[in-house]
Amino acid sequence: MIIVMKAGAAKKDKDEVLRRIRELGYRPHVIHGETRDVIGAVGDERDKALLQSLESLHGVEKVVPILQPYKLASKEVKKEASLVRISDDVVIGGRQVIMMAGPCSVESEQQIIDSALAVKKAGAHILRGGAFKPRTSPYSFQGLEEEGLKLLAKARDLTGLPFVTEVIDPETAELVAGYADILQIGARNSQNFALLKKVGQLRKPVLLKRGMSMSIQEFLMSAEYIMSEGNQAVILCERGIRTFETATRNTLDLSAIPVLKGKTHLPVVIDPSHGTGNHHYVAPMCYASVAAGADGLIVEVHPDPEHASSDGPQSLKPAKFEAMMAKLRLFVEADGRTL
Amino acid sequence: MIIVMKAGAAKKDKDEVLRRIRELGYRPHVIHGETRDVIGAVGDERDKALLQSLESLHGVEKVVPILQPYKLASKEVKKEASLVRISDDVVIGGRQVIMMAGPCSVESEQQIIDSALAVKKAGAHILRGGAFKPRTSPYSFQGLEEEGLKLLAKARDLTGLPFVTEVIDPETAELVAGYADILQIGARNSQNFALLKKVGQLRKPVLLKRGMSMSIQEFLMSAEYIMSEGNQAVILCERGIRTFETATRNTLDLSAIPVLKGKTHLPVVIDPSHGTGNHHYVAPMCYASVAAGADGLIVEVHPDPEHASSDGPQSLKPAKFEAMMAKLRLFVEADGRTL
Amino acid sequence: MIIVMKAGAAKKDKDEVLRRIRELGYRPHVIHGETRDVIGAVGDERDKALLQSLESLHGVEKVVPILQPYKLASKEVKKEASLVRISDDVVIGGRQVIMMAGPCSVESEQQIIDSALAVKKAGAHILRGGAFKPRTSPYSFQGLEEEGLKLLAKARDLTGLPFVTEVIDPETAELVAGYADILQIGARNSQNFALLKKVGQLRKPVLLKRGMSMSIQEFLMSAEYIMSEGNQAVILCERGIRTFETATRNTLDLSAIPVLKGKTHLPVVIDPSHGTGNHHYVAPMCYASVAAGADGLIVEVHPDPEHASSDGPQSLKPAKFEAMMAKLRLFVEADGRTL
Amino acid sequence: MIIVMKAGAAKKDKDEVLRRIRELGYRPHVIHGETRDVIGAVGDERDKALLQSLESLHGVEKVVPILQPYKLASKEVKKEASLVRISDDVVIGGRQVIMMAGPCSVESEQQIIDSALAVKKAGAHILRGGAFKPRTSPYSFQGLEEEGLKLLAKARDLTGLPFVTEVIDPETAELVAGYADILQIGARNSQNFALLKKVGQLRKPVLLKRGMSMSIQEFLMSAEYIMSEGNQAVILCERGIRTFETATRNTLDLSAIPVLKGKTHLPVVIDPSHGTGNHHYVAPMCYASVAAGADGLIVEVHPDPEHASSDGPQSLKPAKFEAMMAKLRLFVEADGRTL
Repeated sequence: MIIVMKAGAAKKDKDEVLRRIRELGYRPHVIHGETRDVIGAVGDERDKALLQSLESLHGVEKVVPILQPYKLASKEVKKEASLVRISDDVVIGGRQVIMMAGPCSVESEQQIIDSALAVKKAGAHILRGGAFKPRTSPYSFQGLEEEGLKLLAKARDLTGLPFVTEVIDPETAELVAGYADILQIGARNSQNFALLKKVGQLRKPVLLKRGMSMSIQEFLMSAEYIMSEGNQAVILCERGIRTFETATRNTLDLSAIPVLKGKTHLPVVIDPSHGTGNHHYVAPMCYASVAAGADGLIVEVHPDPEHASSDGPQSLKPAKFEAMMAKLRLFVEADGRTL
Repeated sequence: MIIVMKAGAAKKDKDEVLRRIRELGYRPHVIHGETRDVIGAVGDERDKALLQSLESLHGVEKVVPILQPYKLASKEVKKEASLVRISDDVVIGGRQVIMMAGPCSVESEQQIIDSALAVKKAGAHILRGGAFKPRTSPYSFQGLEEEGLKLLAKARDLTGLPFVTEVIDPETAELVAGYADILQIGARNSQNFALLKKVGQLRKPVLLKRGMSMSIQEFLMSAEYIMSEGNQAVILCERGIRTFETATRNTLDLSAIPVLKGKTHLPVVIDPSHGTGNHHYVAPMCYASVAAGADGLIVEVHPDPEHASSDGPQSLKPAKFEAMMAKLRLFVEADGRTL
Repeated sequence: MIIVMKAGAAKKDKDEVLRRIRELGYRPHVIHGETRDVIGAVGDERDKALLQSLESLHGVEKVVPILQPYKLASKEVKKEASLVRISDDVVIGGRQVIMMAGPCSVESEQQIIDSALAVKKAGAHILRGGAFKPRTSPYSFQGLEEEGLKLLAKARDLTGLPFVTEVIDPETAELVAGYADILQIGARNSQNFALLKKVGQLRKPVLLKRGMSMSIQEFLMSAEYIMSEGNQAVILCERGIRTFETATRNTLDLSAIPVLKGKTHLPVVIDPSHGTGNHHYVAPMCYASVAAGADGLIVEVHPDPEHASSDGPQSLKPAKFEAMMAKLRLFVEADGRTL
Repeated sequence: MIIVMKAGAAKKDKDEVLRRIRELGYRPHVIHGETRDVIGAVGDERDKALLQSLESLHGVEKVVPILQPYKLASKEVKKEASLVRISDDVVIGGRQVIMMAGPCSVESEQQIIDSALAVKKAGAHILRGGAFKPRTSPYSFQGLEEEGLKLLAKARDLTGLPFVTEVIDPETAELVAGYADILQIGARNSQNFALLKKVGQLRKPVLLKRGMSMSIQEFLMSAEYIMSEGNQAVILCERGIRTFETATRNTLDLSAIPVLKGKTHLPVVIDPSHGTGNHHYVAPMCYASVAAGADGLIVEVHPDPEHASSDGPQSLKPAKFEAMMAKLRLFVEADGRTL
């Protein structure tokens, strides 16, 4: 932590800063500058909140943290990439690019079975589908709940595809974990710390979506919450951030891929369906994600998007998805990986 | 809902849109434009997701919603301002500007009692203090939990000040409601719909904070979640939104006051402490909030901010808070209200 | 400047950093941390780009600037508030809150004369009106140009009100300066450095608008451009920044007032018309601006907004403006100032 | 244009809206809704500002534009992709992906010649280099100006590479056009309309960078400014937008590629150097851009980035650039194009 003093700060102000740094268990180190002094506080910064409180002291201009506040998620602690095993056949984070696909919501047995068969035929590895749906409006379809989980399990039995589905509160987390292969934490719950702790205590891989206005650092801190409870099987998912631009539903931040790869050993998956909100833009963003080094993709596919209960405009029809997969394979191979 | 067709869309595409509009229970109405047609879908738009799915149809350029998706929170449904009664003496939404003040976290009996006495002396009406703390880092202080609630109750007994404290999950919501006078939903849980539904079922006023990247419309939809479960006592709290600017922790959106006053009957409270993240900026933002028509303020006050467990840099010392209150009174009176 | 080394950086990488720091004319100062070293570079950081290039060196994690890059605009260099004199009667930055008002564009002699008389009657000190208009569309009305300047001068002759009008390129800057009392730099030209240098060479006060995505620091750097050419009469104008929120045209950042007051001696003026884009929100934001400490306001007033060539939706009618001024006076007086 | 009336608007308010629509030369068309009426105004919306002024009328809730305000840039007007010819060999917008590369600033003859030779060897088609530099600080290196243009011309003579360089004001635009093969409009000048008009009158291709907080629609309107003056040779360049994220200098918006491809016939080029601000992230973003369908790239390459006068941290060394080009070729070929 670096404490920047105001220009012309009094000696007693500096002395007070030094005293407090020592009181908090750090060693102070002063650099005398031309117009102002800068004081380093040497020690473990993990609980940076306490040092940050020095900003309240007289004569202090600002406090600049140096260390990253995450440990378990950090590449400094574990250099090699983490592999998250979903089933005997499916591992995320290795040489194979993993495709998760399916409808936004499970709507009926027919719909989820059709979807599962279609995405499997096109080469997907994991089925996606929402049973508990976090909807902006209380008047919108809230999902089939446990019935939806049973239908997803039926589709898995039929196709062999493991499935990912969303967990929306600590109370139903164990119920969902009883069915699902991967527990998804949605963007709106990305800093629901009670829920993060809960899935940290379960023994199922977690697909953690980035919040709509979440910095990369906060994203890794949310992963750290899950990991610090004992669950290391965390998959990070970029799904678009909120910006001023309205031509797309969100702004898909693909530079998050190399940024995350530089900071963490966890696998990174991209969701271009929510990232753009428009099925026309999904295929190019899939290609771009793989070229940028993503470990996988999660894509909305619906057999009949014009009748979808949710997210119709961003869902691909099966034929479009199949065509996309064919072209995607070329980019994956250009990158020396397999699909 | 307005469906904008592409320039040169084929007749069969338009016919399909008309068919789908009728199928969903709306009446279509075509406007033939110079370069493209526009189709109005007349009917109740509350579940706009289904109409939005028409964007997937061939020949459709975009779907533009017209109606606001909230009802109970809307001024169209209830024109007069809602009063939220907290205690015999304290009502939010009327002619009196209400001041909530206290530390970010309850840290000890001494600290919360000192804080309560100090803010009461300066004229505050409600004590604030966190017992369950949603922290970005799992390694930061997570609050005293139920012990904190007991200390807050003790401070209330001593001073007569009702208190507001945060609820962080559905599981502990009833426990908190057993002690608190107002249940706070934090910015990070502003779209935690399971939690919103839960506090909607309790019979305590709710202080709902706006999420960091939440639009005004989504903010009102979250209020609608609480209200649609039966709890009409919702207080909206603007606490800064996330933007590119880093000179402040967030960007306090004071125009949200007149915008909300134009759309809803619910009271609006401002949190300049989180909104700016810097105690130097809190007083001017308090004055501005009241001048813009806020019904109240929630401000962090700590007897010893340099030793605070959290949010030290944005907390006022009691003497500063008292000076601020004295000047605030002048602006409140200029507005023809009381403090 | 603080150079943060990577955890486990090699000795030769650190030596290279030290060598480069000295080569650039700074003195290096090493702090040995628990997991990584931090190196201070002591010296004048004004041209921080050169030090920033050290980020390319092997073993360097990041380079953190410490000093503010502006000098002339800084409160560290000049502590007392600057007064910008516009005319014998009108000074911005002192105890009097200054009101600038008038239409977005000069449209006709009748319109600008009517506007000037109306805003003068309501108590405005300065007339505003655009003659050269920077419009997003090449097909929109581009202003009356020199004819507009003449009409503004005529309105000044008639009412005694000095006027502010926009300068849009270096070529016409002198022409505009030959008529106007204050030269406005619009938000879209806030980093048009050729134009900033040009108005820095003229001897007329400059009203510098903040760019739509301009940080406070960049805002002060743009002021520095003007000042470093010799023109110290710079008035800063916050006019809303671009965020995700669409309920207002921009998000008016009123916390910029105390932030700027803490960093610079230059006066600060607020434009709530562009800041909100909606005439309903202008009055509350005027009150809030003054309560937060703004030195003045610039407001769009049009005698017939439904027929305005530009910015009709955010313009006040004269009667509304007059009512606003009456209430504004109460807040100004509560703040111990005059209007 | 769609005018949405308030719920319960009076008949005389609606009549006034109808009267004004006709007065402005449009045909009104009323849709009677369940809770409110919606009025379509049929006609050419190009000068939407006038219709927008109807928002000031009593009883009007909002005005929603339907048409895109650009014509010449629109795919509706010209369906086939535009090819921009730079030299006999180099055409942007066709099957060949075009690479522009070179240093941020021209610093010396040695540096620009070395850069040109290095990027040519690696396969670049166009040299980039700044002679007139728009710098945030007046104290930073402002470029070699005409001397820089001469050095760029010398490098072109030696290597055969055409060059792109920035134009920063109308006054020097012709001077620059006398040397350069492509005129670059920088992000900070993307709404400097005087400059856009000026380069629209010249007969050199223009590389137009997207502004930092510029919507796609505004981006196309700036292209329209250039085109409406007679210059159709516009190349659009996405270079990152400003968001809350600080892990990268900007957020590179790669979804802009398919969005633009859907709306305009103009070629689209990506600048991952400014887009990320970090040389580690440049290569993956190059691969992603091509996979998403970009027509070209513009990349900063410097023989000695640790000594660069500007943008060192985001510049690639020649060897890294060469390695990147080799891998890029694989993605280009996977896309069925050539490099």
